[in-house]
Amino acid sequence: MADFSKFYSDNANNMKASTIRELLKLTQKPDIISFAGGLPAPDVFPVEDLRAAANVVFDTKGTKALQYGTTEGDDGLREELIKFEANQGVTITKENLLVVSASQQALDIVAKLFLNPGDYVIAGRPTYLGALQAIQSYSARVLGIPFTSAQDGFDMAVLESSYAQALTAGKKIKYIYVIPDFQNPSGFCWSLEKRKALLEFSYKTGLPILEDSPYREIRFIGESIPSIYEIDQKGANKGLVINLKTFSKILAPGTRMGWIMADHSLIAKFVVAKQAMDLCTNVFTQMWLAEYMRTGKLESVIEGTRAKYRAKRTLMVDALERYMPKRNDIHWTKPEGGLFLWVTLPAYIDTAQLLLKAIEKKVAFVAGAGFYFDNPEHNSLRMNFSYPTADQIEEGVRRLGLVVQEAITAHENP
Amino acid sequence: MADFSKFYSDNANNMKASTIRELLKLTQKPDIISFAGGLPAPDVFPVEDLRAAANVVFDTKGTKALQYGTTEGDDGLREELIKFEANQGVTITKENLLVVSASQQALDIVAKLFLNPGDYVIAGRPTYLGALQAIQSYSARVLGIPFTSAQDGFDMAVLESSYAQALTAGKKIKYIYVIPDFQNPSGFCWSLEKRKALLEFSYKTGLPILEDSPYREIRFIGESIPSIYEIDQKGANKGLVINLKTFSKILAPGTRMGWIMADHSLIAKFVVAKQAMDLCTNVFTQMWLAEYMRTGKLESVIEGTRAKYRAKRTLMVDALERYMPKRNDIHWTKPEGGLFLWVTLPAYIDTAQLLLKAIEKKVAFVAGAGFYFDNPEHNSLRMNFSYPTADQIEEGVRRLGLVVQEAITAHENP
Repeated sequence: MADFSKFYSDNANNMKASTIRELLKLTQKPDIISFAGGLPAPDVFPVEDLRAAANVVFDTKGTKALQYGTTEGDDGLREELIKFEANQGVTITKENLLVVSASQQALDIVAKLFLNPGDYVIAGRPTYLGALQAIQSYSARVLGIPFTSAQDGFDMAVLESSYAQALTAGKKIKYIYVIPDFQNPSGFCWSLEKRKALLEFSYKTGLPILEDSPYREIRFIGESIPSIYEIDQKGANKGLVINLKTFSKILAPGTRMGWIMADHSLIAKFVVAKQAMDLCTNVFTQMWLAEYMRTGKLESVIEGTRAKYRAKRTLMVDALERYMPKRNDIHWTKPEGGLFLWVTLPAYIDTAQLLLKAIEKKVAFVAGAGFYFDNPEHNSLRMNFSYPTADQIEEGVRRLGLVVQEAITAHENP
Repeated sequence: MADFSKFYSDNANNMKASTIRELLKLTQKPDIISFAGGLPAPDVFPVEDLRAAANVVFDTKGTKALQYGTTEGDDGLREELIKFEANQGVTITKENLLVVSASQQALDIVAKLFLNPGDYVIAGRPTYLGALQAIQSYSARVLGIPFTSAQDGFDMAVLESSYAQALTAGKKIKYIYVIPDFQNPSGFCWSLEKRKALLEFSYKTGLPILEDSPYREIRFIGESIPSIYEIDQKGANKGLVINLKTFSKILAPGTRMGWIMADHSLIAKFVVAKQAMDLCTNVFTQMWLAEYMRTGKLESVIEGTRAKYRAKRTLMVDALERYMPKRNDIHWTKPEGGLFLWVTLPAYIDTAQLLLKAIEKKVAFVAGAGFYFDNPEHNSLRMNFSYPTADQIEEGVRRLGLVVQEAITAHENP
C-alpha cells in the first residue's frame, strides 16, 4: 500500500482531525438526544421562497449563473449585501467586500495570509473549534485569553500582561480573533465597553482584529451592541478590523455562502489568496441568494429564527434549572442570542468522561476541552438549543441532570 | 490608512496576482474578439434540465439540501460519481472519493498537504496557471520539464536527469503534476507509452502523481487513452496517483463542483485539510448535480459539447492555416480535445508585446510566458476556441494573422 506520509508538509502533520467532529458521529445515532451539533433548526429554512428565487435565476440568467464568475463575487449579491449591512448601520462599498464559501473559508484565507509556522493568534479561552483548526493547519499557535467572570469579554488585564510577556519572549503575534456576539461555544456576548477596549488595544499595538460574527443577527433578547467593525468605522476608522459574516445561521448553511468586510487593501490581498484556493465562489448560489435577498424576505426569516431560538433557549435554561443538581459549582450561561450555552460543572468532573456516561443514557453534548488550543478546562460542556425539539430539550436535559448527579455521587461516595 | 503588510505571512508575500487574470479584464471589452479566456460555450449548459433537477431537490429534500453536510461529500452525489467513473472503466468506492469546490480547491488541498516552503513540484513547461498559483501560495517551487517535440508527454530523459540533479542539490520534490488529456495551455495529449513511463518513474522514485483531468471527457477526435489513475489501478495498483475531475468543462463551472480520486489513506488526510478550509462543499449544489446525473442526461451533454468544440477547433485550425504567415518557425497544436490550442511564433517575437498590438486590432489571446514557473518561453500564445462564435473565430484569427505578419515585417525591416 502506498505510504504518502514521508511527503506530507509540516502543516499536514499539524492538522488535527477534530475529536469533536469524530465524536459527533457517535452522537448521531437516532435514539440519542443530541445537544452536540451546531445545526440551525431545519424548520427556519424558507424552502418555497428559496425555490422561487432559484427559478427566477434559471428564468432570467441561467447561462450566466452556470458560467465562471469573478473571484471578488457576483455584483448583484454584493449590492444586496451592501444594503443588508447599511440596514444595520454599517457602510461599505464593493471594495470592502469579498464573497466566500462561508466563514470557514474566510478563517482559512485570513490564516493563510497572516500566519507563518510558529506565529501566534490571540483568541479566547474557550473559542470556536473551526478557527483553531484553521490556525493549526498553518502550524501557528494561539495565545489564549480568559474571559471575565462577568462574561462580557476578555480579561483585559490578562490580555495586556500576556501580550507583554509574549513580546518579551519573542513571539510573533499576527491578529486577535474574537466572536463578540454569542460566542461559540460559550454564548458570551461582549459589552460595548469591552469592544471599545479591545479596539483601543488594537490601535495601541497595531494588531488587526478578526471579528467573527456568524450569530450577530440572531439576538433574541436585549438590544444589539455595535460590532467592533462598526465602532471602528464610526470612530477612528483606522480599518484594523476584519469582519466575517455568513448565511449559515441567518438563512441556510447548505448554501455555503458568506462574506468578508475589511479595508480595501486587505480585500485585494484576500482576492489573490482566494484565486489560488477556488477561483470563485459558487456562481449559481450567489445569484440565487441575491435574488432571494431582493424579495425582502430575509429579515422576516431572521425574525422568525430569533423567535424560535428564544423559545428553545428558554426551554433549555428552564430545564437546566429543574434538572441539574443545585450547587454553587454548577452553572450555565443564559445567552441573549446564538445557538449555544455553556455549562460549568464541579472541577473534578471531566466532561469527556461524562460524555461516555451520557451517551449510555442516550443524551449527548460536546465536551468543552476541544475549544481550547492548549491547557484545556475539563469541566465544561457545550449545549446546542437550536436543533433539538422542545420535547428533546426537556427529556435530554432530564437525562443529563441524572448523569451529572451520578458523577457527583460517585465522587462524594467513592 | 491601515498597513497590514508587516503582518503578512511569507506565503502571502509569495502569492502572485496573476498578470494573466489582470490582462483578461483588458480583453473583456465588448468590441474585442477574445481568445484569451477559458470559458465553456454557454450554449452547452442544459439550463432547463438543470432547473428541473433543482426543483426535484426542493420537492424531495429541500431542508436537507439547505443544512450542513459532511466534509466527505453528499452520499447521493458520490454514488453517481462512482457510476460515472465505472462507465469509463475506473473502479472506486466512497473511500476513494472526496467532493470539492472544483479542481482549484483540489489543487489547493494537495499543495497544502504536501508542500513546505522551498519544496518542489515537478510540472510541465508550460503548465496550468492555477496549479502554479496554488504551489506558489505555499512558497513552494516548480521543477519544470519540457515536452517532447512529438508533444506526447514529458521528455523523459530530461525528467530523469533533472530529477537526479535536483536530488544531488538537496531539493525536496513532493509530487509530479500533469494534465495528460489536452493540457491547458497547450492542448498536448500524452500517449499511452508516456503515461506508462511516467507511472514507472513514479514507482521507481516513490513520487505521487497528481493527474489533473478537467478536459478528459472532452475528446472530440480519436480514441480515449486510459488515465494514469486507471493504468495504475489495472496494473500494479500501487495507489500513487491522485486524479482530479470537475464538472466545470463537462457541465457548468458556475456550480464549482469537482472530485478527487485517490488512495483511501490520502482521502482521509484531504478530509481533515478540507474541514479547516470550508467544512463542506455546497450541499444544495451537490444534491442538485446528483439529481441531474440520475436523469442520465449528462452523457448527451458531454457528447453535444464534443461536437460543438470539434467544429470550433476545426474552424480555428483552418483559419490559422489561411491567415497565419506560412513559415517553418510558426506552428500550432491541433488538439484532439479540450478548449485550447497553442501557437508558437518566431523566437524573436515576445507575445506579451504582441498582445498589446493585438488589442489595438481588437483581438486578444494569452501570452504564453504566464504558464511557466520560471525562465518562460516568450514566443508562444494560448488560444481558446470553446467560447468564441464561429464568426469571431474567423475574424479574430484574420486579425491575429495581420498582427503577426506586422511583427515579422518590423523585425525583418527594422
